[in-house]
Amino acid sequence: MFDELFGARDDQAWLRAMVDAEKALATALAKAGVIPASAATEISQCPAEFDPAEIGRQAVGPGNPVVPLVQAMRGRVSDEASRYVHFGATSQDIMDTAVILVAKNAVAGMVADVDAAADACARLADEHRHTIMIARTLMQHALPTTFGLKCAGWLVALDEAASNLRRVRFAAQLGGAVGTLSVFSNTEVPRLFAAELGLAEPLIPWHTNRTRLGELAGALGVLAGVLGKIALDVTLLAQTEVGEVAESSGGGSSTMPHKQNPVRSVLITAAAKQIPGLVATMLAAMPQEHERAAGAWHAEWETLNSMFSILSTACTRTRDLVAGLRVDRDRMRANVDMTGGLVMAEAVVTALAPAIGRAAAAGIVKEIATSGHPFRAALLKDPRVRLSEEDIDKALDPAGYLGSADEFIDRALRR
Amino acid sequence: MFDELFGARDDQAWLRAMVDAEKALATALAKAGVIPASAATEISQCPAEFDPAEIGRQAVGPGNPVVPLVQAMRGRVSDEASRYVHFGATSQDIMDTAVILVAKNAVAGMVADVDAAADACARLADEHRHTIMIARTLMQHALPTTFGLKCAGWLVALDEAASNLRRVRFAAQLGGAVGTLSVFSNTEVPRLFAAELGLAEPLIPWHTNRTRLGELAGALGVLAGVLGKIALDVTLLAQTEVGEVAESSGGGSSTMPHKQNPVRSVLITAAAKQIPGLVATMLAAMPQEHERAAGAWHAEWETLNSMFSILSTACTRTRDLVAGLRVDRDRMRANVDMTGGLVMAEAVVTALAPAIGRAAAAGIVKEIATSGHPFRAALLKDPRVRLSEEDIDKALDPAGYLGSADEFIDRALRR
Amino acid sequence: MFDELFGARDDQAWLRAMVDAEKALATALAKAGVIPASAATEISQCPAEFDPAEIGRQAVGPGNPVVPLVQAMRGRVSDEASRYVHFGATSQDIMDTAVILVAKNAVAGMVADVDAAADACARLADEHRHTIMIARTLMQHALPTTFGLKCAGWLVALDEAASNLRRVRFAAQLGGAVGTLSVFSNTEVPRLFAAELGLAEPLIPWHTNRTRLGELAGALGVLAGVLGKIALDVTLLAQTEVGEVAESSGGGSSTMPHKQNPVRSVLITAAAKQIPGLVATMLAAMPQEHERAAGAWHAEWETLNSMFSILSTACTRTRDLVAGLRVDRDRMRANVDMTGGLVMAEAVVTALAPAIGRAAAAGIVKEIATSGHPFRAALLKDPRVRLSEEDIDKALDPAGYLGSADEFIDRALRR
Amino acid sequence: MFDELFGARDDQAWLRAMVDAEKALATALAKAGVIPASAATEISQCPAEFDPAEIGRQAVGPGNPVVPLVQAMRGRVSDEASRYVHFGATSQDIMDTAVILVAKNAVAGMVADVDAAADACARLADEHRHTIMIARTLMQHALPTTFGLKCAGWLVALDEAASNLRRVRFAAQLGGAVGTLSVFSNTEVPRLFAAELGLAEPLIPWHTNRTRLGELAGALGVLAGVLGKIALDVTLLAQTEVGEVAESSGGGSSTMPHKQNPVRSVLITAAAKQIPGLVATMLAAMPQEHERAAGAWHAEWETLNSMFSILSTACTRTRDLVAGLRVDRDRMRANVDMTGGLVMAEAVVTALAPAIGRAAAAGIVKEIATSGHPFRAALLKDPRVRLSEEDIDKALDPAGYLGSADEFIDRALRR
Repeated sequence: MFDELFGARDDQAWLRAMVDAEKALATALAKAGVIPASAATEISQCPAEFDPAEIGRQAVGPGNPVVPLVQAMRGRVSDEASRYVHFGATSQDIMDTAVILVAKNAVAGMVADVDAAADACARLADEHRHTIMIARTLMQHALPTTFGLKCAGWLVALDEAASNLRRVRFAAQLGGAVGTLSVFSNTEVPRLFAAELGLAEPLIPWHTNRTRLGELAGALGVLAGVLGKIALDVTLLAQTEVGEVAESSGGGSSTMPHKQNPVRSVLITAAAKQIPGLVATMLAAMPQEHERAAGAWHAEWETLNSMFSILSTACTRTRDLVAGLRVDRDRMRANVDMTGGLVMAEAVVTALAPAIGRAAAAGIVKEIATSGHPFRAALLKDPRVRLSEEDIDKALDPAGYLGSADEFIDRALRR
Repeated sequence: MFDELFGARDDQAWLRAMVDAEKALATALAKAGVIPASAATEISQCPAEFDPAEIGRQAVGPGNPVVPLVQAMRGRVSDEASRYVHFGATSQDIMDTAVILVAKNAVAGMVADVDAAADACARLADEHRHTIMIARTLMQHALPTTFGLKCAGWLVALDEAASNLRRVRFAAQLGGAVGTLSVFSNTEVPRLFAAELGLAEPLIPWHTNRTRLGELAGALGVLAGVLGKIALDVTLLAQTEVGEVAESSGGGSSTMPHKQNPVRSVLITAAAKQIPGLVATMLAAMPQEHERAAGAWHAEWETLNSMFSILSTACTRTRDLVAGLRVDRDRMRANVDMTGGLVMAEAVVTALAPAIGRAAAAGIVKEIATSGHPFRAALLKDPRVRLSEEDIDKALDPAGYLGSADEFIDRALRR
Repeated sequence: MFDELFGARDDQAWLRAMVDAEKALATALAKAGVIPASAATEISQCPAEFDPAEIGRQAVGPGNPVVPLVQAMRGRVSDEASRYVHFGATSQDIMDTAVILVAKNAVAGMVADVDAAADACARLADEHRHTIMIARTLMQHALPTTFGLKCAGWLVALDEAASNLRRVRFAAQLGGAVGTLSVFSNTEVPRLFAAELGLAEPLIPWHTNRTRLGELAGALGVLAGVLGKIALDVTLLAQTEVGEVAESSGGGSSTMPHKQNPVRSVLITAAAKQIPGLVATMLAAMPQEHERAAGAWHAEWETLNSMFSILSTACTRTRDLVAGLRVDRDRMRANVDMTGGLVMAEAVVTALAPAIGRAAAAGIVKEIATSGHPFRAALLKDPRVRLSEEDIDKALDPAGYLGSADEFIDRALRR
Repeated sequence: MFDELFGARDDQAWLRAMVDAEKALATALAKAGVIPASAATEISQCPAEFDPAEIGRQAVGPGNPVVPLVQAMRGRVSDEASRYVHFGATSQDIMDTAVILVAKNAVAGMVADVDAAADACARLADEHRHTIMIARTLMQHALPTTFGLKCAGWLVALDEAASNLRRVRFAAQLGGAVGTLSVFSNTEVPRLFAAELGLAEPLIPWHTNRTRLGELAGALGVLAGVLGKIALDVTLLAQTEVGEVAESSGGGSSTMPHKQNPVRSVLITAAAKQIPGLVATMLAAMPQEHERAAGAWHAEWETLNSMFSILSTACTRTRDLVAGLRVDRDRMRANVDMTGGLVMAEAVVTALAPAIGRAAAAGIVKEIATSGHPFRAALLKDPRVRLSEEDIDKALDPAGYLGSADEFIDRALRR
């Protein structure tokens, strides 16, 4: 139920990654001449499907699922080959490598969705570069901007989040019981092992140096923040009183037919809110004792599992959200005008400044703006405002006060 | 796999709780005369099994699983009764009530295990009230204490954690779409609804007042801290160099026959480390918008689900850990003696003080203690130490310097 | 600068609390006959002002400020009395007791402000029990409610947060070096010590049993969530497009005269957002090694310090925010009406149901509601709507669809 | 007091950075021809010292310290120049740029200390490449390793943490009220502004795109994890029962002369434990509303302030800790031997395998190892162990079972 709503944890994928690691180990050992090629061949052909529940039950005793998996794999190959399953490795070698494989795959999926979402933002930014809307600071109307620039902001953030994720170092783990490769002492093996799996080779084993996972967690945290920002903006813009955007579909209420809940945004927000705590867990688990941690290592698995499933789903939702967003240009313009031009006060000051000085201009305009009278009429009537009706209307036109919005959109699109 | 290691999330239990809530609602409405008794009877007999995956898939559109569940329940009763399924309720009424039912059940299980663990601690405290061991501060030998007092400390902490959990307010939720009971406007219904489910009736609906869940999260956080403390102590005492306790079983290594890993403690530690971040998520989700939150509410479900499954398993493990703990009295005593009596320096100062003043005594004893010579021999030889050999041996006897340890154990046992 | 914005950390208050603890210890020891009364008298008259920076510098070596403070206190009394300063205590006894004294004082201040805020909410709830406003779920207009009920919700949450804080156990700490009272072995002393300071006496010393601080952190976390909820609602209601409430003062913009930023709410939100992470730190620090932790204990000080200063300021701001809130009844009513009665669709269904059945009624009303035509006119025109104009207007009147709002307000006020 | 223990927050540095930003803005505006050069010159010479407390008090009204600072700066220049102070900027432009300046400076200091600590680790790694010690997994003796390899592990982690920090993007912020440069609409100005301050120019203003701060927080979180790992290892190795390393100085206890507390490690641990929660706060604050956040932005200041002060101090302490670490080679060797060669069982299996097969060898060795008899003698006596005494002693020699430890050290040193 919650898997469908927030993303499925896929134990089978973890198990397959562990099996892949064991097979790559055998292949690497054979290539390096440490074990017979025939054993490696046999191991690499061992069927990869195991029952997660059964592995899980047997994992409780030793404290990790690699021990029963190795046992099970050994049972599926010949006696001869079985001696070379897991040869010279420690459970953490396999588990860490599997984590990295699962992470690499999960991150690739997220990046693809983030890129697609960014592309959709780029289209919106271009399409709406002249769609005037009100910019809001501290949730109050400030000055005009364009919806295009808002989308350009989302675009840049998504690109940065993806770029972060692309920088994560996905390295294999192979050090043997205590990180010295004590059983075979051949540093060709870790190189071949990593190559076999399409992973980077680390400088040295990183059993209790968790910088990689800390960086991954940080990058996922930043991604969550970016998704959450977009969802928050959509939720706010979709408020009944604001009504500037709507999600493409869904969100109806059976009892309240007028409602159209921004359900995708809501679920993305729910996802984003769960990530910072999980990042904190990953970082708090970084100090790991000696050559293998007594608990902190084990705390990573479910935490990463949660992050991958929650964020993968949220990335897909964000892609769909942005791609299908419905934009109400008229409502945007109407909202700009709802304060009767007051949001253009700064522009009026700027227009008036050359004649009477900026400070004086600011004082007069503020007085008029806070008088409670309709702004344009009051400006026209006040003799201190030495501007023609045309000048006043020009100053009050939001289209004339968009600054460098268009140029910023161009910059964002030239990514 | 991870379910077996760290605890299973049970979507079916959540679904059942939702169904129970819908049935209790119908019953309450009928008792209050709002809907026909026959409809309530029929609804209360509706089969309770639904497919979580199917409900989950249909939950994505509306953003919560109550909508498809209600749809499915309506399909299982007569047309007449179907009109009264979910009558006057909002999705959050059912979801929140289900959360509380699941929580109540999970907490009851945890409390039972914590109580059992506390009982085991009480037995250990009594049994080992004279088992002398070294107390360690900042991981350094300090003064003697007893293993009984250490267990008394665990006992008190467990009792306090359980007492916290017993204080959590498990209240039903029923307010209708916006918390006003707009459809039937009868405050008898929430009272009957709560009674039907064995829950407390809240003062008013609490849709966006999440104090209950914040308190629950806090109490679970405290529990995790207590479990983590016990597991940490065991892990440290089980170190090869310390060797004062061992877990009852498990933890062998296939390649390193001398090892006995404290696997239960390690997994409890892994559990404990995951909770603070989840508590932070629950607390960060407390500020919820207006009459129903746009995401913060939805962020609670998986977070609570994780906390319940992780902590339930950890409580059972802690119970088993303490109940089966093997204690090595000789090793404890040997460790007390490993500094050659230096840990008794404070006692020697106290013995010497009456004769020459505490400051002088402290100075002389410190000088001797840090001289590098065997402490007892050096004390005997130094003429400034105006104590007989018998007095010195008495001062050096850790059994004579246990302060109020025994009395504190009695206090803890009189809980 | 940040002290003024978010609350000052008061090192001097911590130092004074440590001195108070040392004095109370001497007094308790004398009362129990352990040390001479004259020494206690002298110690209790020792001047309490010390230089925090100087104490801080000297604290780095031993790792806590109690060591230099004791040194400094000894220098301010006679040689004879100096021997009895800190007699039989350990640094953590004094530091923990000081933490509790500081916490008790901070919490008392928070509770007073929360109570005042709750009183203000009660006044608003009563005053606005008939002020109709739209209730919003997922940030969309849902059904009518009253501003009074919203304030009643705030009131109940504030009361619950205060009640939580009142339940925190403020207990003294006194166990000596390893929690056995090894030096004087007299359990009268902890009792007298606690009484002297107006604190509770714990069952046994709690050096590495941090449940008390975990509970305190949890209660502060719940408080932050409640403050954040109120601030969030105000921020949303103060949006330019919503305009239903405004803060009493402040928040003007020099360049944008039309703006009135809800600055208090913004700063309360900023405070609330900082607390969950700090609570996580406190909980993660609960597993403390053996008889005194090697770092986790030390991690509590700054964390609590931050929580106290941030939340104390936020409580005061919330009190002022609620007490001075300006409510725009007309805007509330106008917002209810902005969907042209669509928010009353459920009421129309209810009115129509007796005639044609609820399902049929719901279908017809939904069709009309989503037709795009003005709702009331379309209802009047549609022959399937077998209701008189009077009936329709009655159904469309939000005042007639407030359910039990008023009764819930009464309940909240009867706290 | 706590400033000295955990690091000082330096409000003055923040204020200076804000003033630097305002001056750079004036200079950039003048260079771009937007304001008179004379005004910029005057502004750039404005005295930079302001009273943080006074600025703080005046910051409460507008909700940020930039407003009163600009007011104060305007009062220190001529009327003419005062018009150009803060020209076209918004408070967040100045505050964000100041945050980045403070961060850049703080990070530079941390990186210098981390580099120095890494250098010290490199020296230790080289010096101790043949210092045999026991590797510990799950806190149990596993196999031999070298202290050099342990230090190489610290070294690599420190290098990676520093490399992370070097990758953080320190970019200026300049967008005007809503990110459009509405007042002067000249994108040369942000370029000149950034150059003036030695910062990068962002693609577009990033007022509510907080990826930079999220990345910074993540990198600081990883750093904390690395520092915490080193401190944890030292604390564990310094345990009385282990005694393999000691800190260079400090940590004495007045009442327990035998103690030498690892105070630096304890304080580094305390620091490391505070960071994950603060990172979570920064990430949770990333979703910021529209064009300027209502609280989430403000939540960043104190959080970053805490991270900078706590981590700067912890980096310096780690540098000193590693540089002064005292290593007890004899104790390391004695600990390797304390299990009587049992830790070499895997090596014995490897030696015996060629003769009788690995599985058989493993079975026999395990039986002997767990028999309770002294391992070497039992091996010699057992007829199934077809190895000469010389072979057995060779297999039992830890120096012969260090795998690729030495090569890994070389790799780490070739950074």
